[in-house]
This record gives sequence, structure tokens and C-alpha cells, in this order.
Amino acid sequence: MDAAGVRTREDAVALDRADPLAAWRDEFELPGGVVYLAGNSLGALPQAAALHVEQVVRTHWGRDLVTSWTRHNWIDLPVRLGDAIGRLIGAAPGQVAVADSTSVNLFKLLAVALRLRPGRRVIVSERDNFPTDLYVAEGLTALLGDGHELRLADAGGLEAALGDEVAVVALSHVNYRDGALHDMAAVTEHMHGRGALMLWDLSHSAGALPVALDRCGVDFAVGCTYKYLSGGPGAPAYLYVAHRLQEAARQPLSGWMGHAAPFAFEPEYRPAPGIARQLCGTPPVLSMSAIGAGVSLLERAGMAAVRAKSVALCELLIELAERDCGPFGLTLASPREAARRGSQVCFRHPDAYPVMQALIARGVIGDFRAPDILRFGLAPLVLRFAEVWDAVATLADLLATGAWDRPEFRAVRNVT
Amino acid sequence: MDAAGVRTREDAVALDRADPLAAWRDEFELPGGVVYLAGNSLGALPQAAALHVEQVVRTHWGRDLVTSWTRHNWIDLPVRLGDAIGRLIGAAPGQVAVADSTSVNLFKLLAVALRLRPGRRVIVSERDNFPTDLYVAEGLTALLGDGHELRLADAGGLEAALGDEVAVVALSHVNYRDGALHDMAAVTEHMHGRGALMLWDLSHSAGALPVALDRCGVDFAVGCTYKYLSGGPGAPAYLYVAHRLQEAARQPLSGWMGHAAPFAFEPEYRPAPGIARQLCGTPPVLSMSAIGAGVSLLERAGMAAVRAKSVALCELLIELAERDCGPFGLTLASPREAARRGSQVCFRHPDAYPVMQALIARGVIGDFRAPDILRFGLAPLVLRFAEVWDAVATLADLLATGAWDRPEFRAVRNVT
Repeated sequence: MDAAGVRTREDAVALDRADPLAAWRDEFELPGGVVYLAGNSLGALPQAAALHVEQVVRTHWGRDLVTSWTRHNWIDLPVRLGDAIGRLIGAAPGQVAVADSTSVNLFKLLAVALRLRPGRRVIVSERDNFPTDLYVAEGLTALLGDGHELRLADAGGLEAALGDEVAVVALSHVNYRDGALHDMAAVTEHMHGRGALMLWDLSHSAGALPVALDRCGVDFAVGCTYKYLSGGPGAPAYLYVAHRLQEAARQPLSGWMGHAAPFAFEPEYRPAPGIARQLCGTPPVLSMSAIGAGVSLLERAGMAAVRAKSVALCELLIELAERDCGPFGLTLASPREAARRGSQVCFRHPDAYPVMQALIARGVIGDFRAPDILRFGLAPLVLRFAEVWDAVATLADLLATGAWDRPEFRAVRNVT
Repeated sequence: MDAAGVRTREDAVALDRADPLAAWRDEFELPGGVVYLAGNSLGALPQAAALHVEQVVRTHWGRDLVTSWTRHNWIDLPVRLGDAIGRLIGAAPGQVAVADSTSVNLFKLLAVALRLRPGRRVIVSERDNFPTDLYVAEGLTALLGDGHELRLADAGGLEAALGDEVAVVALSHVNYRDGALHDMAAVTEHMHGRGALMLWDLSHSAGALPVALDRCGVDFAVGCTYKYLSGGPGAPAYLYVAHRLQEAARQPLSGWMGHAAPFAFEPEYRPAPGIARQLCGTPPVLSMSAIGAGVSLLERAGMAAVRAKSVALCELLIELAERDCGPFGLTLASPREAARRGSQVCFRHPDAYPVMQALIARGVIGDFRAPDILRFGLAPLVLRFAEVWDAVATLADLLATGAWDRPEFRAVRNVT
């Protein structure tokens, strides 16, 4: 798969014909007439997820009712799904659990990290990290008071923020805005050398590229399941705690699902062994039930193959967009080097907001990120090379004709 | 509906014929051959919920993808569903939001309460409160340290636990184990008189009986949606913050959905006005989508009528069970007086565990609560008087014949 040779739409179609992952697209339900480039916002629906959710609703909930907690093993969903996700992110079994939202899981693990580094009261992150990660750290440090602090560094300025008072460094593996990819192994090793624990948010990397948490010696990770994992809108998130830290990792959201014996109804909290102590309340079974299908597709396709296609798709998008849209003011905002980029490509344009709205109106779904970013997330199991061609052709036509410059495209509304 | 006159199964059938709520049963999907008395554990599936979830999966997620956040108003689900639940629990609009689990919401609101009563560092609850409520309070006070404490009182011993150091009293409106119902108005007024804030867990009362949060002057409430509200397995929970407290109510799980402008991606947290600041991460849309149907059925049936039938069902169960099963060692564990009881009836039996397993094997689904409780939750929109008759007849036969005393019924497994 070499994007460099693509001169015509036929060349792109030829890449699709040669694509070893092409057949996986049939496993997803996709609308006609749409090029979906927002796989980093909400992943497409796996057919198997739709069927399974319907079965869980009609047969498990409707027919077997409360007995499904044991009969259909609802009770094990958090760790069963966690282990499946673990296989995509380089985590041996027993270290990942699915629960709550990314924000809530981050709160738990930042609190754990602060407890594990007594005397160190600072959480370090990047100013350009996904805002909810910063808000959660802010909420935790405000709750704790007593010198606890969130310290933000600008990109490239992390080193200056480090010191003996830093308990944990929390970073996104892939930046939500420009798609820049951290070197997980090198950064983790460096932070460990400074005595800090390392927490990675994998929301924009899990399912998009190979991740090797165990091999990189990572301490903690969190991530959402609704982007490249195709777990469904707002699907519950996951968290990772390395085996070596689990026994000491007491988190403050100590709900009954994290108890050693949830159904003994003991008056005092006794944390479960292993990763299960990171759970809190009753899991939202319907949303949880949609998660497994997409994870399984990625595992069967193989993350190395997924990454190879992701790189090829992204390079094609960059090459075509720079060639055809560059003359109209579009500039690359993501790292040019594939090794430093996730599976998303972002461009700057002074009128990014109305341009994106016009693009969506023509069936090319990407998203806008303030102040001037057009963001495209490329899900390798879903996307065709010819669609990348079509997306750029549509964008180039919009820019060349100025057809984006209409009041209805300038009207501001929330987008996710 | 008067249970006192029921002497034969035909008498029970006659009550069903006269029951003004009888037709609502058809709105639920129910398996044949089962008497479902675990509506307080997992409410039955509303037909409309199944249809709506399928639509959300296939059409919203599958076809409209990320645009559904605005096109199908996913983004407003937490407050829209909150207002609907508010109509069942006596809360004017803008005071209830659906989010996270009961445990997580309790953590948020206990933290808020402690902040609103500076200098007071004690949370009071009952030793027999639902354990996760105690675990969460324990986790919060341990995190805060510095004299923060969870103080537990035995039933009836609340008064002795009160003092100037108490910030908040957190109680369940209906006890999960024996179904005892607190007098919300009187207890709330009393705790306010002692300078404490009042938080109610409505998990076992919402949808089972009328609740009047605003009228009782309650400060905070939480509750799950998967019991009498029929919101689906592990469906997200709700929380209530009285209007007068909302501006001061800053909670520590400050995720992006509680931000004043979630999509502006500001680096610093700025809480949304009103109840929305109690939100945290991205809501699990599929599970959220199942919640509205059951809430709507209850609203249309009317909570006064629901309560009247609930009382009649419970009284019939008590009368028949004491008459036919009392001679075999079954004793009432719930309050006898209807005004002091929720919509569940519990009995003690020295062999409650195997008896319940044998009962379930015969298609009468209740649940067991340690150490010796047979628990029956009666959902008035679903249950028939004749089914109560049949359940007691089955239980009486098991006890009379000793058919429950078999190894497979003694084998212990988790039940919810």
C-alpha cells in the first residue's frame, strides 16, 4: 500500500483492490453516500454489536431478567471485556477493566498515584491534553487541597515541569487535536527516572495503532471505547493498572462492584484482589454489551496490519490534500512523519468551522476543533482509499468554488 | 382492591379483573411460566424500550453516526431524562440529571455536602444502609482524611449519632433488605434542625411509591433506574440537587460534560450553571436510551394508583404467606404497616438461601439477602394478584414437602 503513486481515482481504487483488510468493512453497518472520517469521534457500528445488543435486550433482559447476571455472565463483563481490550493494547490478562467513563477512571487512578507517592503532591500534564483530563485532575487536586496541584506544561516543555514533588505524569498517547503521537516507551522511562508514575490516556490510540503497555513499563492507563474500538456512543471506558501496583492501588470510588464479596453485603469495604477493585457501581450492561464486537474485529484483523493501512490512508490524505487544497489555504497541522502521528490527520484553515459544516453537508463527515482545525480520523477497518480520494475532491471543490461561504454553514452549534 | 377478602385463587383473579392498572402489563415483555418478584432488583423490559434501543443502535449510531449527538439530541439526554424522573419523585424541572452510577453520584454529592458545611466533617448513615452507599462514604472520607469520618448508627439510633460535627445524613428512603420506609418529610426536617444536610437514596422507592423531594425540602438525592423504573440492567443512575444549592454545589468529578462549554475545549474547568455541573464524562447513550420508556409508563399510570396497587399486592402476599407458610417457619421481616413499607416484602426463614433457589427453579423469581431473607419486590405495573397467589402456593408446597432441601439448591453462587 503506497500512497505516493496515486495520481488518479483509479490508482486509489487499485489500492483498495490490493488491500488485505478490505473485507472487514462488510462487518460494519455504514450509511450510503457518506465518507466517514470521524472514526476518532464515534466509531462505526459493527453488525455483530447490533445483533448482540438486541439479544441482550430481548433475550437476556426481557426473558431471563435478573438471572442473567449469572446465566449470561453480566457480572464478569468488566474484566472479560478488559482482557479483550488488553490484547489490543499490550496488557496481559488481569490488568484491564471496563467501567465508568474515561473521566471517572482518570479520577480513580490519579488518586491512586498520589497515594503511591506520599509527599509528592503534583500532577503534571500538557496544556493541550484533552480538556476533560485536565478538568478531572483539577477537581481532584481542589478536593484534596493541602498543596496538591495540577501543573501544566506546553508541548515540549514537560521537562521543566518535572521535579521531586511530581507524583504522576498524565499524558494522552495521541493528541486529540493534532494527532501527534508520544513515544510511550521513552517518555515512560524518562518519567520513571524522575521518580514519577506514568499514566497514559489511550482514547485516540487504542485500536488505531499497536500499544504495548506492559512492554513499556507503564503504570496506569485509561481510554474510551467509542472511537477506534467502535464500542458505541458514550460506551464505558477502561482502565489499566500494572500487576505490580495492584495490591497497593486503593482507589477512592470504592463501590460495591470493587468489593471482594459484593453480594455478602458486608458493612465495611474490603477491596477485591487484582484489577476488580478499580470497579465502582453496577455496570451499564446494554452499553457494555456493544463493546466486544469492535474489539474482536480489530484483534482478528491484527493491529500491525491495521497500523500499516492507517499509515497508508493518512499519507494519501496528506498528499492529496496538500496538492489539491493547499493552494486554497489548507495547511497540515499534524506531524508529517508517520511515526509521530496517530490515525488522524488535521489541517488548519482560517475558515475551518464553516468549511467543515459544508463538507459534512456534502456527506464527508469529519469534525472541527477550535480554533481552526479540520480533523479527520481514519478508521482502517472501515475506510477505503477511494473514499479518501473522494473526500479530498469534495473539499477541494468547496474551497475552489467558495461554496462553503454561506450563512447556514457559519451558524455555530455544538459538535462532538 | 382489598386483599383481606381473598380466600381462593378465584378471589385473586377477581382482583385482577377489577384492577385499573391491569392493562399496563401488556406494555412489558415478560417470559411465560414465570412469576417475577424481583422488580426491585431488575425491572422488567418495557416493549417501547426494546424498540427505542434498536432504533438508537441501527438508525442513530449506525446511520447517522456522530451527527446524532445533535440530530437526535444525545447531548441533552442527561437532563431530559432527569426531568422525566423528576416528575415521578416530586422534583421540579432542572434539578435531576441522569449520569454515572448511584455510587459515583453519591460520591459527588457527599463531597458537595461536606464543602457546603465547612468545619463539619462527619457523614452519618445507617449500618443497614445498602453497603455500596457506606463503601462510597468510606472511600470519600479516607481520601479526605483530616478528621473526616463516616459514622454509622443502628436502626433507631440515628439521634445519638447527630451533633454539630455532622455535615450530612445519607439514608435510603426504603431499606434494601427489609423494605422499611423512612418518613422523608419528618426525617429531613429533623436533620435540618440539627444543622445537617439531607441526602436520600431513592433506589428502592422511585417508581414504587410517590416521592416528594421538593415538598420535603430535601437537599440531595441519588437513585438507580434499573429497579422499579425499568431502565435496564445497570442503567445509569440519577442525582438531585435542590435549586437553592446548585450554584454553590461544586463537585469534584469535574468532567467535560459538566463544563459550561464542553465543546469550547477551554483548558480550565468552568462549571455549567444548574444541574448540568453534576455531570462528568460522556454518557453511555445505549444504556441511557432504555431509561425513558419505563419512566413514561409510570408517569402515565400515575404514582398514586401505582402505590395503591402496590399496597394491595404486598398485603395479599403477607396475608397468604403468613397463613400458608407461617406454619413452616416463615416469618415476616418487613414492617407490617403499609405506611412504613416500600413495595417489597421480606420474610425470614432459617433456610432462606436454598428455599429461594428452589423457588426460582419453579419459576417464582425473588431474591435472597444474607443471612436469612427471602426478598420479594412487587412491581405494580407488571404483577397480577393471581401471580401473588401462585407464588405463595408454590412456596407453601416447597416448604410443606421439603422439596427445597436438595444439594443443587444449597450450592452457593452470587445473586444480585
